[in-house]
Amino acid sequence: MADVVMPTPKEQLMAAIAPEVAKIEQSMREDLQEATAGADPLLSEVLNYGVFNGGKRLRPLLLVLAARLCGLSSRNKKNKNKNKIYKLAIAFEYLHGATLFHDDVIDRGDMRRGKPSVNKEFGAIAAILGGDFLHSRSMALVGEYGGIDALKIFCQATNAMVDGEFLQLRNAQNYNVSEDDYFAAIKGKTALLIAATCEIGALAMGAIHTQQQALGEYGLSLGTAFQIIDDLLDYQGDATQTGKAVGNDFQEGKMTLPLILALSTANGEDRERLLFLLGNESGRQEGFSEVYALIEKYDGFVVSRRRAESIVAEAVAGLRVFSGDECRPVLSVLNALAQYVLARKK
Amino acid sequence: MADVVMPTPKEQLMAAIAPEVAKIEQSMREDLQEATAGADPLLSEVLNYGVFNGGKRLRPLLLVLAARLCGLSSRNKKNKNKNKIYKLAIAFEYLHGATLFHDDVIDRGDMRRGKPSVNKEFGAIAAILGGDFLHSRSMALVGEYGGIDALKIFCQATNAMVDGEFLQLRNAQNYNVSEDDYFAAIKGKTALLIAATCEIGALAMGAIHTQQQALGEYGLSLGTAFQIIDDLLDYQGDATQTGKAVGNDFQEGKMTLPLILALSTANGEDRERLLFLLGNESGRQEGFSEVYALIEKYDGFVVSRRRAESIVAEAVAGLRVFSGDECRPVLSVLNALAQYVLARKK
Repeated sequence: MADVVMPTPKEQLMAAIAPEVAKIEQSMREDLQEATAGADPLLSEVLNYGVFNGGKRLRPLLLVLAARLCGLSSRNKKNKNKNKIYKLAIAFEYLHGATLFHDDVIDRGDMRRGKPSVNKEFGAIAAILGGDFLHSRSMALVGEYGGIDALKIFCQATNAMVDGEFLQLRNAQNYNVSEDDYFAAIKGKTALLIAATCEIGALAMGAIHTQQQALGEYGLSLGTAFQIIDDLLDYQGDATQTGKAVGNDFQEGKMTLPLILALSTANGEDRERLLFLLGNESGRQEGFSEVYALIEKYDGFVVSRRRAESIVAEAVAGLRVFSGDECRPVLSVLNALAQYVLARKK
Repeated sequence: MADVVMPTPKEQLMAAIAPEVAKIEQSMREDLQEATAGADPLLSEVLNYGVFNGGKRLRPLLLVLAARLCGLSSRNKKNKNKNKIYKLAIAFEYLHGATLFHDDVIDRGDMRRGKPSVNKEFGAIAAILGGDFLHSRSMALVGEYGGIDALKIFCQATNAMVDGEFLQLRNAQNYNVSEDDYFAAIKGKTALLIAATCEIGALAMGAIHTQQQALGEYGLSLGTAFQIIDDLLDYQGDATQTGKAVGNDFQEGKMTLPLILALSTANGEDRERLLFLLGNESGRQEGFSEVYALIEKYDGFVVSRRRAESIVAEAVAGLRVFSGDECRPVLSVLNALAQYVLARKK
């Protein structure tokens, strides 16, 4: 008898979400075709290039899962709700795409998920304008399919995202950033939008307030953990897997959790050394391995990861309000997703 | 007796619209303060710097005037409608602002209305993100105060704007641009949004379809004429008045109406010469006065202006459907605005 190879948790998760991800991709293809019908072919090319790039589709997936938890049937009934939910879901991926288009202009990012970024491939004009198009389309979809309440949540999250970026921008030359500053910035930059995706999934299904709130909290925690891991991967990731160079944040003088933790616990001499390396360009170019070792010495990576783990545990615990038997399959996917956020390598 | 100096038509118009413009400015100050309450102070600074820059406020003004034509009282009654109309009006100025923020990044524009652009003063990150914030706020306002129908018109116009820019981008190295291509591009780039501002002003007042349509057509024509004059000013304007260097479009190889007209009527030799100057960078840097003379020789400027004049005449004629006595004061302002669009020097 041949050996039976058990699927890993990641493989199990991927198998469970694959049909949803396929439907999300399909909805985006149809919607983009509709939205760019009669438009300039270059616009259509840029959008397709930038949107279909092997992304994880985490945000739309969370919206669909939240809707399922609040009663959306996974069978082919209730077609009206189904269409609405997928339109709302892809709006979040568009907004995420718009952010990536613009980020690559801002950071002059040449690569995105292992291929040239829109900015690199088509230039800054296309990246800025293409992002604006996706932004506008996302708002139109949320307004049309989610109504004014959903649009308000969506726009608040978008504006919080900009605000979080500004906070980070203003703190760019400030090495005296506290943990609170960091958490405030990533809440705006990442977590509120992931909270909004879960919340709007519930809202669109007419879920009661407690459920809507629980899903919002789950999203907020998941998004926070997601960003912490992202920032860890910037130090510890494998460039061949992440598709991004290691050490970017440090080189840009960006204060993320591992560094903040190390600075706050380092002894006087090590702290001085960290600040010295951060404070001048050649230190930021050449001091990466030294900084890495100092962060390790003060457990900056370990403590960051533990912080993410406990936030994820909270996220999952908050979903207790969904206690019916029919909720179990979706809950187990949401749980697995949360574990994946911690375990991901890219 | 002292000489009585009659006010010029422009002075009369400015006096007529000054109270509305003041209310629009006031609404924006209040709304931006509300929208950025608790946000990063740098974000607030960037937005205030970029938005309050002595702009003409043409778009919001048109929305208020369209609403007045459809029954909005100019006295202090109907406060609910009044608040709604101003919120919708400023959404258009925000969107316009977002476009200018992004345009200055794209064109590396250092000056905007005689002072450093947001891009120059605060950098590309602030300009891109600040634009995104305004974009998102504008959509939220239109959704909240105008409803889903208004949001659809607004988003369609926004996406047409991006599409128009792409058309122009794709045509950047193509000197074989027809008049039709030009009109299609400026319709998307400028006119549809001005049409939307008039249309939404009518829609928000519950105007009948004929009125809504007439105002939409007026806006479309006005916007088209506005852009033709803008393109003329790029050749013929006085930099001290426009705040922009003369000859930018030609240097960037942008095909606007005067040049398109000249190319289409020039004899073989002059056409060759124009194409030669356009086709190489030093020609575009040093050939401006020669190109100017050639456009003049083939009446490119005169015919462009005539085109704008006849479009404006159409715009005004379309407002016939508003025939009541109570419409006269607003009609005369809309008429004067249309004349101003033709006469403006900046």
